[in-house]
Amino acid sequence: MSVLSNPYAPSPHDLISNVNNFQLIESTLREGEQFANAFFTTEKKIEIAKALDDFGVDYIELTSPVASEQSKKDCEAICKLGLKAKILTHIRCHMDDAKVAVETGVDGVDVVIGTSKFLRQYSHGKDMNYISKAAIEVIEFVKSKGLEIRFSSEDSFRSDIVDLLNIYKTVDKIGVNRIGIADTVGCANPRQVYELVRTLKSVVSCDIECHFHNDTGCAIANAYTALEGGARLIDVSVLGIGERNGITPLGALMARMIVSAPDYVKSKYKLHKLRDLETLVAESVEVNIPFNNPITGFCAFTHKAGIHAKAILANPSTYEILNPSDFGMKRYIHFANRLTGWNAIKTRVDQLNLSLSDAQCKEVTAKIKKLGDIRPLNIDDVDSIIKDFHAEVNTPVLKPVGIARDEMTEEPENKRFKLSK
Amino acid sequence: MSVLSNPYAPSPHDLISNVNNFQLIESTLREGEQFANAFFTTEKKIEIAKALDDFGVDYIELTSPVASEQSKKDCEAICKLGLKAKILTHIRCHMDDAKVAVETGVDGVDVVIGTSKFLRQYSHGKDMNYISKAAIEVIEFVKSKGLEIRFSSEDSFRSDIVDLLNIYKTVDKIGVNRIGIADTVGCANPRQVYELVRTLKSVVSCDIECHFHNDTGCAIANAYTALEGGARLIDVSVLGIGERNGITPLGALMARMIVSAPDYVKSKYKLHKLRDLETLVAESVEVNIPFNNPITGFCAFTHKAGIHAKAILANPSTYEILNPSDFGMKRYIHFANRLTGWNAIKTRVDQLNLSLSDAQCKEVTAKIKKLGDIRPLNIDDVDSIIKDFHAEVNTPVLKPVGIARDEMTEEPENKRFKLSK
Repeated sequence: MSVLSNPYAPSPHDLISNVNNFQLIESTLREGEQFANAFFTTEKKIEIAKALDDFGVDYIELTSPVASEQSKKDCEAICKLGLKAKILTHIRCHMDDAKVAVETGVDGVDVVIGTSKFLRQYSHGKDMNYISKAAIEVIEFVKSKGLEIRFSSEDSFRSDIVDLLNIYKTVDKIGVNRIGIADTVGCANPRQVYELVRTLKSVVSCDIECHFHNDTGCAIANAYTALEGGARLIDVSVLGIGERNGITPLGALMARMIVSAPDYVKSKYKLHKLRDLETLVAESVEVNIPFNNPITGFCAFTHKAGIHAKAILANPSTYEILNPSDFGMKRYIHFANRLTGWNAIKTRVDQLNLSLSDAQCKEVTAKIKKLGDIRPLNIDDVDSIIKDFHAEVNTPVLKPVGIARDEMTEEPENKRFKLSK
Repeated sequence: MSVLSNPYAPSPHDLISNVNNFQLIESTLREGEQFANAFFTTEKKIEIAKALDDFGVDYIELTSPVASEQSKKDCEAICKLGLKAKILTHIRCHMDDAKVAVETGVDGVDVVIGTSKFLRQYSHGKDMNYISKAAIEVIEFVKSKGLEIRFSSEDSFRSDIVDLLNIYKTVDKIGVNRIGIADTVGCANPRQVYELVRTLKSVVSCDIECHFHNDTGCAIANAYTALEGGARLIDVSVLGIGERNGITPLGALMARMIVSAPDYVKSKYKLHKLRDLETLVAESVEVNIPFNNPITGFCAFTHKAGIHAKAILANPSTYEILNPSDFGMKRYIHFANRLTGWNAIKTRVDQLNLSLSDAQCKEVTAKIKKLGDIRPLNIDDVDSIIKDFHAEVNTPVLKPVGIARDEMTEEPENKRFKLSK
């Protein structure tokens, strides 16, 4: 039963989440080029596009060909690579831009125009009637060339809801592949996102794409919640690079999605290539991978506190929702510190091929914690303490043959004996 | 009307969001000490505690005094500082720990025990009956000492909901200051958080505290959504440092909250001290501030694309939901790149105290974009192009007096004239 024929019928969309059926519009070469540090040569753009394609993204979005002469040439060059991913370019809602865009060889055009009162007043100065007319003209034109077309509002979460629904209904009626919602200033929160997407789902029949900036740290959660609400496509960039502090990062979104839709994510994306992809882009724009980056941050799979280490050793699922091996990464138990516990130390004793009872492991753990109170420890420190302790408790009562009494007392702490047992 | 007396009455909690009335439990000196790189000396702990107190956090949470001998001494030392913030320590739900904790001088004790089947099986091996008995014993003991008490489950989002509601109802009945929900593995998403908090609000009368790990990038949004659902307190650490890739970061949460509750946040927290606080902790644990950190990341207030720059110059609210001056930061328009627009260049022309018409600004912008296509630009590059262009268009037809013909042709590009007009 159609929603329109009976407004009181249960909406079929109520059961529709796209968490298991989402697509990625990868925008490192568009939004990412707006990152403060970004300057991509043609060669670098091609290298990044190929790496994204290999990773498995569905779409690659490129800077507008009217931004500069080289931007146009680069767009044409990437279209000629014959990638599996569809190539898009991102333009203002204006025929001047559209005419250039359709000649570049792209598979589709992403059109955007500001709809909030801020942008209507201070950016383009046009009213909703003008926007609607411009949108129809550009959409009809791009469609006439046989290309995919997306129409997006800009600053959607500060736009009038009636204006939004009107313009989306209009463009959906003339037929677009998808409409876009953009949290251009990074103000949206998840429940708002869910409400807006759900409302839009009842107004349009095309796919919904979402673009979230990360100014208030919600870009990943907003993307996830948008999919729950029925959005289909999420804009991402590698490490989230973009205007200001950027948008939904590809890697972090993979972390979020693999938890909820493991089979879909693992079958579709080459997750073990994520680290190389992030390194490629980070080096290109001269930034470090953030220390706290999901998945690839240096300590994303490091466990430190004693009770954490104990449980992880028994079963990694206790303190890990992500399996590091899915991403070609490794787990690490950080046992060289004052928060360590005897279970972690016992495991280290085993790794060193030594034999100590539980009581002895507790005793040596106390020694390790004592030194850990005084200064940072490394693994060698801990290994030395364990080996010394092991030697001590395993030393025969008889003094070793051939070692003079003086020598023995000189450095009792560091003396080690090779036992034949 | 009480909820219990009439289950069909509208719940007063439906209207209760704590977005305008939240408190911070700052855990850099507990959760943060579990960060891989963390080793805090006593002096450093005191310095950090004082800085947090000055910033305005409500509570400061410290590592368990049973973790090591020095941890206990440090806890006692911080309690003696006479800070405005209340001091808490964080212990396992066990009388051995509780007896040590109450003697340190803390204002309150945060008790935690694993409730998920993973943790019950692989961490402590106890059933819910045992947990309940242990909780009651510890809570009664801490209360008898006149201290605040929080009871938290661990791995709450993978715990049985009936188990959770039972244990929380039990501890609420005997009287705790707050119960805690912990997303220990970072698996929760915002709508789940909202549902769980809302459900708990109907079961307990005490405050609800939430602790979110950031493995899947949702720790900030989850915290916000928890407050919307009626939670009152959020656990944070500076830069989010903690186990693995950490928890809700203090700074990012401030970004999220100032958008929604500007007056409350600005009146309560010294936001202009955020950068120093982050630098202090980053240096202590030897990490860099992430390039994409909300607020203090190097480009959080940098605007690059032409249409962004144009609108920002007309009204910063167009592309900024955060006001950089609230945090003692500055806005920056990045105009030295191929995505630049003539509005940004016109502003630079004005800053240089030169005079060019709009048409001339467009012409010089084209020159700048051309060079920007070839290589990364810096401000000096752009200024040179503008000054040369200005000189060119303003050069009198007559050759300047006192400059020989040879000199003029030698370096026509760089020659500048001081005009008297």
